[in-house]
Amino acid sequence: MQLSEDDLIATLFAPMAGPGGLGLKDDAALLVPPPGCELVLTKDALVASVHFFPEDPPDCIARKALRTNLSDLAAKGADPLGFLLAIALPAGIDADWLRVFAAGFGEDSKTYECPLLGGDTVKTPGPLMISVTALGSVPAGRMARRTGARPGDLIYVSGTIGDAALGLQARLDAASFTALSSLHRAHLLERYLLPRPRNALARAVRDHANGSMDVSDGLVGDLTKMLKVSGVGAQVQLAAVPLSDAAQAAIAARPALFETAVTGGDDYEILCTVPPEAALSFESAAGAAGVPVTRIGQATAGAGPQFIDLSGAGRVFARGSFSHF
Amino acid sequence: MQLSEDDLIATLFAPMAGPGGLGLKDDAALLVPPPGCELVLTKDALVASVHFFPEDPPDCIARKALRTNLSDLAAKGADPLGFLLAIALPAGIDADWLRVFAAGFGEDSKTYECPLLGGDTVKTPGPLMISVTALGSVPAGRMARRTGARPGDLIYVSGTIGDAALGLQARLDAASFTALSSLHRAHLLERYLLPRPRNALARAVRDHANGSMDVSDGLVGDLTKMLKVSGVGAQVQLAAVPLSDAAQAAIAARPALFETAVTGGDDYEILCTVPPEAALSFESAAGAAGVPVTRIGQATAGAGPQFIDLSGAGRVFARGSFSHF
Repeated sequence: MQLSEDDLIATLFAPMAGPGGLGLKDDAALLVPPPGCELVLTKDALVASVHFFPEDPPDCIARKALRTNLSDLAAKGADPLGFLLAIALPAGIDADWLRVFAAGFGEDSKTYECPLLGGDTVKTPGPLMISVTALGSVPAGRMARRTGARPGDLIYVSGTIGDAALGLQARLDAASFTALSSLHRAHLLERYLLPRPRNALARAVRDHANGSMDVSDGLVGDLTKMLKVSGVGAQVQLAAVPLSDAAQAAIAARPALFETAVTGGDDYEILCTVPPEAALSFESAAGAAGVPVTRIGQATAGAGPQFIDLSGAGRVFARGSFSHF
Repeated sequence: MQLSEDDLIATLFAPMAGPGGLGLKDDAALLVPPPGCELVLTKDALVASVHFFPEDPPDCIARKALRTNLSDLAAKGADPLGFLLAIALPAGIDADWLRVFAAGFGEDSKTYECPLLGGDTVKTPGPLMISVTALGSVPAGRMARRTGARPGDLIYVSGTIGDAALGLQARLDAASFTALSSLHRAHLLERYLLPRPRNALARAVRDHANGSMDVSDGLVGDLTKMLKVSGVGAQVQLAAVPLSDAAQAAIAARPALFETAVTGGDDYEILCTVPPEAALSFESAAGAAGVPVTRIGQATAGAGPQFIDLSGAGRVFARGSFSHF
């Protein structure tokens, strides 16, 4: 059964609209900013066959589209206020697919307390494209900037690094991952399919971090970007980079995959720098939020990152950053 | 010459970023809402070959993408605060095209005082797609709603109706418009190519209108939608619908084009309802803003619109509304 645009909006998307969405019956949404807050805005677009596999479960595609944006809010120390959604639908998409797709947005919208505010639905002769604009709030003056890293700051990452990049590799080249247990393979594949944005860490970030960004294009490249715009350098202990059991097993079987792990994309973890005197408070706040954080190095007065391996030698990565562009 | 994503952003888009865009160097934008204001948010997506011709001048494509969103803000009585932009670029787009495209955004961004705040640039194997999210502000409680029309309200439209729909027809079927003067044909084509959003009317709308929306999917269909969500009816004098000289000439040559004019899309005029006691103030404010407005009918306690022609007979339109979906 085909749905008209009006049916699609009324039956699938209106139920997840927040009060500001006005039932998705108006030209625009209305947002009353929380008193004393500033707004943080982010917009990430995803294209089928570029940012996800068209055959992925539709609810996972939807969740990924929202979660990549939620991850940006988390890294800025912002709490979600809502999102707008534009989808360009190719002809092959049917009502059943759309129901599951919308349900993915609906569930994450509840989980992350990020109601739908509005959007647009159009047809395309090309691939499915999803454009999400997410809005968050921070107390005035408290957005964590990418430019905020200072010499002496300790550098932290949340969770584990590289799982999604290894998951993508495992998906593209399953034969090379046969040494992995099915449990480890499943872990990596799932991390690629479904980011887990660290919104629980937002408050610890805005309260304690100087510089912050999310790791979406690879730890090495993203750290390099943050250092550059902050005008600082860094020493990073590669042995300290947190790896999951699955990533460790994959790298043990094929050591070259370490570079994939630290330069690949789609981590959606938080990379932030914290002044030493705030380190204990930050770690404690992260612990209370249930988000593991690991110190991987320290910012310096130099320029660019120095990556130091177990032997104490510097390491240079040929491919610093993954770019979806 | 190919531009990298970073070059593209730094050289073409960063110059039009507002202070909240943080030089387009962060993961997100920061917006400090004006004190006492609420935010109005809108998001319209455009796909090549669906919403515009891929061979259109790139600056016009950019302007149209921004202006369709600005039109939504104007209809809500909101003043622009800024916009976010996601573009999905197909392989054939080169740096020269992008420069002209970005210049279109840059100029309109100045004209409408709507700075770029952020966005995303991705590649696509499909057609060019542009997704704009525009933000505006209204004094608290003053957004003009589509649901606000009340029985007795006078119904106004800004500017002239049907030019863009006739322009699209003239483009698709030039042979049928040979009776038109080249000046008239150029007028219609230009109205299709480049909407002129009525942001100058925003204040008059928020100060005086009960119900308001922009006319993007055809006057007949859009009025029907507004009446439905407002729970009112209306009587509309078709002879009162404002037509440009060019539209009048086209319709004089082919009377069937009247239906195209009132049911076609892309007008980007404002349709609003004003209580009779505010009519003079509204007309005077519109005059001061330099925006022509025309009274075309009156809302009633009934349901749906009645369209009345010159002979006093009711007229029903087979195709109420144009849908891009």
